[in-house]
Amino acid sequence: MTSTINLADKLSQFDDHWSPRAVAQYNGNDIMVVKVRGEFVWHSHADTDDFFFVLKGSLDIEMRDRTVTLNPGELFVVPRGVEHRPVAREEVHLLLIEPSGTPNTGDPKTAAARKVI
Amino acid sequence: MTSTINLADKLSQFDDHWSPRAVAQYNGNDIMVVKVRGEFVWHSHADTDDFFFVLKGSLDIEMRDRTVTLNPGELFVVPRGVEHRPVAREEVHLLLIEPSGTPNTGDPKTAAARKVI
Repeated sequence: MTSTINLADKLSQFDDHWSPRAVAQYNGNDIMVVKVRGEFVWHSHADTDDFFFVLKGSLDIEMRDRTVTLNPGELFVVPRGVEHRPVAREEVHLLLIEPSGTPNTGDPKTAAARKVI
Repeated sequence: MTSTINLADKLSQFDDHWSPRAVAQYNGNDIMVVKVRGEFVWHSHADTDDFFFVLKGSLDIEMRDRTVTLNPGELFVVPRGVEHRPVAREEVHLLLIEPSGTPNTGDPKTAAARKVI
């Protein structure tokens, strides 16, 4: 990664939901932006924590025993193995970090193809 | 990490410069906030990339062959092994990610003690 990454600029380049775009690499992790709206699927990642940072909007992260709500400037790390379901009642913009190749649904068969912008 | 992290709240809890506070953990990495002002030391990290995301202010990251300037909402990853010097002409607030235990100066002898809030 050799240039400055402006997240608003990257987010202006696409409109689809639940399809993360990798904007930088950090030690084998993808730094990603994504737009989300509505309910995602319940899933977990056996091998990695799941980092969420809200840039715009308000995101609920439902877990089996509780729900956390993230507003802009707030972050949450879902520990590995913990089932969760992100729910966005409006369009939400997120910064995500996951090891490169992590399926966003927890399952390679249903995962969105990883895109780079 | 089991609760929502509000970065503005975390940043309101300290005023010193160049002393990162870990606010969350992600796969053995510290997610940190820091306030900086002035010139840091030239350094590099042989074993890790160095992630910078600007929350407030404008940060120059000088490298031997060029300088990048980061404004709020912009990020940059200094590749491992690349010498760099952060320079903040005003107070700048940053989100940083580094493997837990990484010395912020690249040298354990001169590094700031890692604090957790």
